[in-house]
Amino acid sequence: MAGNTFGKLFTVTTFGESHGIAIGGIIDGCPPGLEISESDLQVDLDRRKPGTSRYTTARREEDEVKILSGVFEGKTTGTSIGLLINNNDQRSNDYSKIKDTFRPGHADYTYQQKYGLRDYRGGGRSSARETAIRVAAGGVAKKYLKQHHGIEIHGFLSQLGPIKIDTIDHSVTNTNPFFCPDESKLEALDEYMRDLRKEGDSIGAKVSVVATNMPVGLGEPIFDRLDADLAHAMMGINAVKGVEIGDGFDTVMQKGSEHRDVMTPEGFLSNRAGGVLGGISSGQDLIVHMALKPTSSISVPGETIDINGQSTEVITKGRHDPCVGIRAVPIAEAMLALVVMDHLLRNRGQNADVQSTTPVIPGQA
Amino acid sequence: MAGNTFGKLFTVTTFGESHGIAIGGIIDGCPPGLEISESDLQVDLDRRKPGTSRYTTARREEDEVKILSGVFEGKTTGTSIGLLINNNDQRSNDYSKIKDTFRPGHADYTYQQKYGLRDYRGGGRSSARETAIRVAAGGVAKKYLKQHHGIEIHGFLSQLGPIKIDTIDHSVTNTNPFFCPDESKLEALDEYMRDLRKEGDSIGAKVSVVATNMPVGLGEPIFDRLDADLAHAMMGINAVKGVEIGDGFDTVMQKGSEHRDVMTPEGFLSNRAGGVLGGISSGQDLIVHMALKPTSSISVPGETIDINGQSTEVITKGRHDPCVGIRAVPIAEAMLALVVMDHLLRNRGQNADVQSTTPVIPGQA
Amino acid sequence: MAGNTFGKLFTVTTFGESHGIAIGGIIDGCPPGLEISESDLQVDLDRRKPGTSRYTTARREEDEVKILSGVFEGKTTGTSIGLLINNNDQRSNDYSKIKDTFRPGHADYTYQQKYGLRDYRGGGRSSARETAIRVAAGGVAKKYLKQHHGIEIHGFLSQLGPIKIDTIDHSVTNTNPFFCPDESKLEALDEYMRDLRKEGDSIGAKVSVVATNMPVGLGEPIFDRLDADLAHAMMGINAVKGVEIGDGFDTVMQKGSEHRDVMTPEGFLSNRAGGVLGGISSGQDLIVHMALKPTSSISVPGETIDINGQSTEVITKGRHDPCVGIRAVPIAEAMLALVVMDHLLRNRGQNADVQSTTPVIPGQA
Amino acid sequence: MAGNTFGKLFTVTTFGESHGIAIGGIIDGCPPGLEISESDLQVDLDRRKPGTSRYTTARREEDEVKILSGVFEGKTTGTSIGLLINNNDQRSNDYSKIKDTFRPGHADYTYQQKYGLRDYRGGGRSSARETAIRVAAGGVAKKYLKQHHGIEIHGFLSQLGPIKIDTIDHSVTNTNPFFCPDESKLEALDEYMRDLRKEGDSIGAKVSVVATNMPVGLGEPIFDRLDADLAHAMMGINAVKGVEIGDGFDTVMQKGSEHRDVMTPEGFLSNRAGGVLGGISSGQDLIVHMALKPTSSISVPGETIDINGQSTEVITKGRHDPCVGIRAVPIAEAMLALVVMDHLLRNRGQNADVQSTTPVIPGQA
Repeated sequence: MAGNTFGKLFTVTTFGESHGIAIGGIIDGCPPGLEISESDLQVDLDRRKPGTSRYTTARREEDEVKILSGVFEGKTTGTSIGLLINNNDQRSNDYSKIKDTFRPGHADYTYQQKYGLRDYRGGGRSSARETAIRVAAGGVAKKYLKQHHGIEIHGFLSQLGPIKIDTIDHSVTNTNPFFCPDESKLEALDEYMRDLRKEGDSIGAKVSVVATNMPVGLGEPIFDRLDADLAHAMMGINAVKGVEIGDGFDTVMQKGSEHRDVMTPEGFLSNRAGGVLGGISSGQDLIVHMALKPTSSISVPGETIDINGQSTEVITKGRHDPCVGIRAVPIAEAMLALVVMDHLLRNRGQNADVQSTTPVIPGQA
Repeated sequence: MAGNTFGKLFTVTTFGESHGIAIGGIIDGCPPGLEISESDLQVDLDRRKPGTSRYTTARREEDEVKILSGVFEGKTTGTSIGLLINNNDQRSNDYSKIKDTFRPGHADYTYQQKYGLRDYRGGGRSSARETAIRVAAGGVAKKYLKQHHGIEIHGFLSQLGPIKIDTIDHSVTNTNPFFCPDESKLEALDEYMRDLRKEGDSIGAKVSVVATNMPVGLGEPIFDRLDADLAHAMMGINAVKGVEIGDGFDTVMQKGSEHRDVMTPEGFLSNRAGGVLGGISSGQDLIVHMALKPTSSISVPGETIDINGQSTEVITKGRHDPCVGIRAVPIAEAMLALVVMDHLLRNRGQNADVQSTTPVIPGQA
Repeated sequence: MAGNTFGKLFTVTTFGESHGIAIGGIIDGCPPGLEISESDLQVDLDRRKPGTSRYTTARREEDEVKILSGVFEGKTTGTSIGLLINNNDQRSNDYSKIKDTFRPGHADYTYQQKYGLRDYRGGGRSSARETAIRVAAGGVAKKYLKQHHGIEIHGFLSQLGPIKIDTIDHSVTNTNPFFCPDESKLEALDEYMRDLRKEGDSIGAKVSVVATNMPVGLGEPIFDRLDADLAHAMMGINAVKGVEIGDGFDTVMQKGSEHRDVMTPEGFLSNRAGGVLGGISSGQDLIVHMALKPTSSISVPGETIDINGQSTEVITKGRHDPCVGIRAVPIAEAMLALVVMDHLLRNRGQNADVQSTTPVIPGQA
Repeated sequence: MAGNTFGKLFTVTTFGESHGIAIGGIIDGCPPGLEISESDLQVDLDRRKPGTSRYTTARREEDEVKILSGVFEGKTTGTSIGLLINNNDQRSNDYSKIKDTFRPGHADYTYQQKYGLRDYRGGGRSSARETAIRVAAGGVAKKYLKQHHGIEIHGFLSQLGPIKIDTIDHSVTNTNPFFCPDESKLEALDEYMRDLRKEGDSIGAKVSVVATNMPVGLGEPIFDRLDADLAHAMMGINAVKGVEIGDGFDTVMQKGSEHRDVMTPEGFLSNRAGGVLGGISSGQDLIVHMALKPTSSISVPGETIDINGQSTEVITKGRHDPCVGIRAVPIAEAMLALVVMDHLLRNRGQNADVQSTTPVIPGQA
């Protein structure tokens, strides 16, 4: 495949450019009998939608998803599910300036060299616009995982520039435009973003996703380990430059006696592994962190080259996120849902017969 | 697939347990006409081999790879290449103790729950033993990339516990058992490992891989981006808990004006992106870092559970690496080679016609 | 994948039910720079469209395809191409009768058992309605193959019930509603179909597809041979029950001395192999034949069972094709184009370097 | 993939040339806990083995398969299964003559043009030698299908040249070297083959495979239908030129009122469909027929070209099958087993939740 399909058994294939007619996708492999409606998917689409706060781009995307097939009388039929979101907002002229200019830190130059031409309007296919379909598809997976296995997925902002989030309260996350789970940090974030906007600059962020009530046994060694597929999924989100499972890079300085999560009949005594052992889910919470670079779409002028390889200057005018990382929260949740869903189907495909005589211990003691 | 195949066009499928008869693999999709011999692959196998220094396990694996097919009169024929390495060293009794015990931090528990049974000898399929085949297969990709595109791949240790490597000199890396590119750190590493061995403990590490002379245009958006596939490949290496492309988690605190790599007619002025823009190679050096957890196979006693879910104690006797991260260097090189090779074939499959009118700028100004 | 994706490098994924909101698909892997417009695809869609003659169903499908992405300023961009066809004609009430009845020879029973529920309206996903998207996608492949390699694809009716077509004149094929390449058989076909319609019965057919100007070397042994993938593609067309390459079942009674196609410096002296040797294209014309069963949607009453497994009677009222095989002609052309296109990209992905020193001989002496 | 992998969830990847060191393969996705040993696989390998009668090549292949991994204490572990068969018989000199000559009807010419070089010894990769691994892998699938679902697979010769087999008695099939299920035809076959051998010529054959006790619901529309995947599998067997499901090409002359298999509460009244409706298994017997061309390896002299494109003569000396079709019987059984196995896992992956309220009717009334 040329890269627009995600998953092996529960697959999502997407299409669409930032300023084309529409974006859409196809879910293939969804189990039949799942009650699903457009409103189920709209919830996360609205969370992802820009312009929900003054800290994200003012661009208005309606992001109204339509289910075109695969659902009959309110239930999935087991056939492929067609998803469509029309692009209502196509101010192409906004982007005419960058037609012949390669924005630094963007995909303009690489798309041009790879394909020999590109849809320059708003970044075309390389725009984060495309992630709306991932969120919609992830919504289907989320609902199945919740209804059939009680698996819940929570994403949140864990750091924005210098501001680290210490306490995690999922009930707080969706009450503020930062997806910040720590009430005490809201004012600092507010202030930081205001200053940033004045500077016309942008900042990076760290986002985390956790899945609870995970079953044991998901993940296909050797190459399609659960953690490997999670890394693939998260690094595939626009602007992500790093992925960690559990303690991630902190393990570099940990000793074996300190790192290993002790198992007791009452459960695991810690979760430094982040819920994966040997590439297979352990039943502990799945913990994934990711680093998102600051967007290069800023009003601070910069040097760059044009389509002829000549030197020129670039300034991104108008709408942009000072921190694209914030919007990545629902996208990361969706990708995690897609990975877990895919591995759930793959695992039961091969191992439906299995009856382990070893009792399952709780994720936490 | 059940997870034992890597890649889409240049694929590697592997089999084999730590203490089975043999391990092996099949390379499918290798271009014909490449001069290759077992000695080409043996070089990296020997670098990976344990027992090459007193800091890695004393276990003697011969790791002699045999090419069983796909090569005729010294050249690849375009048909699938069979690789085989016999297991000469099968002291199963060493492992009889762990037959009914789940080692913490290992895959024993998850394999048992996923499959209902497991080959407990030396970790069976979950043992790093399997990576020998990845290294052999990576050797084929490495040679093709070097001969046909001048691409060179250098892996090295960038941190071991508290010891950070500052200067990188590739000519130093292979002159010491740590794959350390910094002469000035060898003594400190030596001392640290000696103490660690006395404690019977282990430590984490950070390993980096760099590819130079990269072409522009490799990587398949949206999901199979070059960085996403690199993350998948590296997170799939035993003990890896985190992956970074370029500046990775440092970008969380970077501003857009500081992060974006400026393009000039003379080339890129920096490489914080690590050689990837929008999931496609930019022609800059490809830079990947990974965190490896400390092995849980230590002689420090620990609590755990047995196959019946009852509490018990575990001590890993005999051979083990105090730092498994060290041995990951040639493995990481191999995985990077496999990813780049696969994307090279995928890209020319779709884009062989492409003639970009924009001049390619150098990776570095 | 759950079966709705076709191809490996040039992939087509489809969705949509007979009487849903719309049907659609995504082409992934199309080379960039190909000039394509909706009108290019509409030509074959109109050939496939029912109601083009009194011998095919009177149902009016507009079949107007929209290209939603992947094409910019008239050229493909290398990104995924979204295709959409709205269902204008949704007379669901026509089908209310079969809601609880399983039509013999149809997929009603198997879909119900596989998925536990089904969209019974007009056969839902199992309806030939879905093939419209295959035809549209095939149109993109057809244009690329023609423009870049001069490959031409001709499908035609080679038998309808007892009426065998002897002479093949491609210029005749599209001048009549039977896709019959033999002028002299038109009257007999006309008469036969008229009688059939009176009986309220249906008949089977044999359809053939030929590709000319084929390059040598397409096809991936061992399993993804060109002929194997053609068989997969054609047997996947609704109602197809048999597939032949070249002489097909006639080879059962042929002797080796008679079957082998002699090669001379001037070219092959015959083409019993149908253009494939060892699973790889030989440069001869690619010749594929397929058998299509008679549709079971007939007004002759029949016994069957209902959704509760009880005995009942079925009569298909209203619109239906007396010979569904006729409409398969443009579908078979599309599937052949998709297979050749996919193998073209796969072959150059792996073998772009190859320079054979053996001269290519013509397909025909 | 470059074509050496078969299947999606239960995959088989193979390697090996006719006269290389060894041939082998990897099964990935086999459910754990299946009792399997080399002797289970050897049975069919011996049935396939040449030299078992004077009607098949006198070449002695030991075909002793070794299981190198994935089986522990007599049971599959769920990890990949390595299979190896050493080539004991490597009389390369036998083939030195064809080094520079392209045998008509063989893959010599197409391999040379595709890859630019070839292992000419005994046809290299294109030799039927490779099918031994398919048979071994199929043996694993066969055992699982039998033990877990009671599915049985019977292959047999249904026609050899002009000799048609009328009555099918599975108990007869394996009692004679022709895999002929009709005792009354053995003498005629014997005589025909004797004459053929005198002529130094070869003949085509028709082979059939039937699976009984099939479950309802296997097959993934739209493209990966059970019948489509069967066609892919069978057309991928060396020398196969045609594939039929059920009545196959006979349906061309059938009417709808005659073709449709009537369903009653007691079961289906006929099986013209061959066990597949809408690409999904119906619970009826799965019936597949295939046409195998006569081998071109005959001692009747023929004209051809050499590696420089010049005219030359070819005679195949020594060992060859006068009817390669005969040996295809166990290969066809293996491929059918692999297809059904793969679809079984795929179906339960997606549809494990399904509880159909419609009673399953018997395959036969």
